Amino acid sequence: MSEYSKSGVDLGKIRRYHELVRRTFGGGEIGVGHYANAIKLGDHYLSIHVDGVGTKTLLALQTGIIEPVAQDCLAMNTNDLACVGSRPIIAVDYLALERPNDELVERIIRALKKASEEAEVEIVGGETAVMPGVITGFDLACTVVGVSDRLITGSEVSPGDVIIGLPSSGPHSNGYSLVRRLISEGRLSLKDYAQDLMRPTKFYHKAVLSVLDKVKGASHITGGAYTKVVRVTKHKVVLELPEPPEVFKAIERAGVPEEEMYKVFNMGFGMLIFVDPTSVEEVMRELKKYDEPAIVGKVEEGEGVYVRTYRGTVLRLA
Amino acid sequence: MSEYSKSGVDLGKIRRYHELVRRTFGGGEIGVGHYANAIKLGDHYLSIHVDGVGTKTLLALQTGIIEPVAQDCLAMNTNDLACVGSRPIIAVDYLALERPNDELVERIIRALKKASEEAEVEIVGGETAVMPGVITGFDLACTVVGVSDRLITGSEVSPGDVIIGLPSSGPHSNGYSLVRRLISEGRLSLKDYAQDLMRPTKFYHKAVLSVLDKVKGASHITGGAYTKVVRVTKHKVVLELPEPPEVFKAIERAGVPEEEMYKVFNMGFGMLIFVDPTSVEEVMRELKKYDEPAIVGKVEEGEGVYVRTYRGTVLRLA
Repeated sequence: MSEYSKSGVDLGKIRRYHELVRRTFGGGEIGVGHYANAIKLGDHYLSIHVDGVGTKTLLALQTGIIEPVAQDCLAMNTNDLACVGSRPIIAVDYLALERPNDELVERIIRALKKASEEAEVEIVGGETAVMPGVITGFDLACTVVGVSDRLITGSEVSPGDVIIGLPSSGPHSNGYSLVRRLISEGRLSLKDYAQDLMRPTKFYHKAVLSVLDKVKGASHITGGAYTKVVRVTKHKVVLELPEPPEVFKAIERAGVPEEEMYKVFNMGFGMLIFVDPTSVEEVMRELKKYDEPAIVGKVEEGEGVYVRTYRGTVLRLA
Repeated sequence: MSEYSKSGVDLGKIRRYHELVRRTFGGGEIGVGHYANAIKLGDHYLSIHVDGVGTKTLLALQTGIIEPVAQDCLAMNTNDLACVGSRPIIAVDYLALERPNDELVERIIRALKKASEEAEVEIVGGETAVMPGVITGFDLACTVVGVSDRLITGSEVSPGDVIIGLPSSGPHSNGYSLVRRLISEGRLSLKDYAQDLMRPTKFYHKAVLSVLDKVKGASHITGGAYTKVVRVTKHKVVLELPEPPEVFKAIERAGVPEEEMYKVFNMGFGMLIFVDPTSVEEVMRELKKYDEPAIVGKVEEGEGVYVRTYRGTVLRLA
């Protein structure tokens, strides 16, 4: 049994639920189960995606660091939309509360506004629901709609392509049921890592969209971490990741097996961008205006997603 | 203190949260705080709305009658979109679970599929999240996107207009924290009213859209019930509602004051359509193809929302 399963989150079950959703709904230009789906509307593609911040809300309440989850909520969606080449334009939020709480609502709404300005996405509505008996603390999810002239699914990715990674700011918004269990069992110090754990998910969409004409595929590293890279390509992906930030090493030291770390956490990179070798130099130059890109892997003949960790371990993750 | 407040849901607080959201976000063609907001996209308007089914999920689990909440979740949104003249086209669902539960997920996903076919709305994606510690039972929300060539906000409604009501199938998806408290206190028999309480929210959007060129305003009766009619018009609204279905009378007998009944529950009508007196006959004829419309009120000079109940009581609700 994995450490994550012991925390009540069974990634195998979630994968099966996603598969059920994919089989049941189908439809759209991309299909269900990619980073986002889209429909044709006139000459454009309209993309839509929904995602929440998971149980990070409980850690927000525990630490009193509330605001970052607002950005998490938007970024989980804007980054996913960018992975299919879509520019996020509007959003709605869904805030469900255990009970009325003026200070909490005000802090979240203001933080959503601030994050939406940074993301250049307009929040045009939302639902604030009080749900005693269903919600403990609060739950926060967003739906974001984007537009594009074309869609990127990764179908153009081919052996020889280079994978550029954009650094993460921490675990972003995934793996928090596991993290909270490690904290509650005294295996991870909340005092030492509260700031690292509560840092908001980085917005990657502006960086990705700035080089869109050179992007052959993009993979937002979220729930399921590197196992999800198969969404972008069926070719063999070989990643070589440097030493992760300290917070990930602390989680690993708390007793999470190395392989599970790379299946649950982003381990330092929140976005992978697949480009043709001839575009690498230009893309790296452009991305440096937004972030600190690093070449972290390549696409090869064959199949499977492999990661060579900083310790030299080679893991097959998918 | 109202009966609803005693159940943990303070409508005054929720109104203040909605007002905060409206002030903070602004933007869009309609603005935040109406039934749905919209943006201009090329020659069309793109509308978006998010809503959940509230604590009806707990009653679903208690009764084992799960499927209706899937339709609730879509209908709460498609009906709101129709109120601004928008035809719903695509949706995403957000299902948050306490723990993995294969049977529950399968029943909900299949019911969502069935409801989406009836609604003629395509579900193009969704999120299924397991959130131990945040969720008890499950939470279900949807975001629906619609398109239209023009928007209806009620600005054309004027004194003399006739209000046509479309019957509800029960309390739909509002007031369930209050209903559950009445049940748990032994004031309302779940055994006698389980079927009535679990009936799904009716889809009204096809009926409304079928007469759209004659609709001057439309009001979906949901949370806040008839107090929300002020969204559609600032003119005086005078409603005369017939005897409500038995389930509402049973809730009232359980100890909810008459005025609160009309501020929390739809009391038998889920959709109000505002039309010019010259259009009434034609609109009624068309609506009869979809439902059993009834003339339930009129717009007068002045302000306020008044309801004359079947007992003859006149209530000012807003």
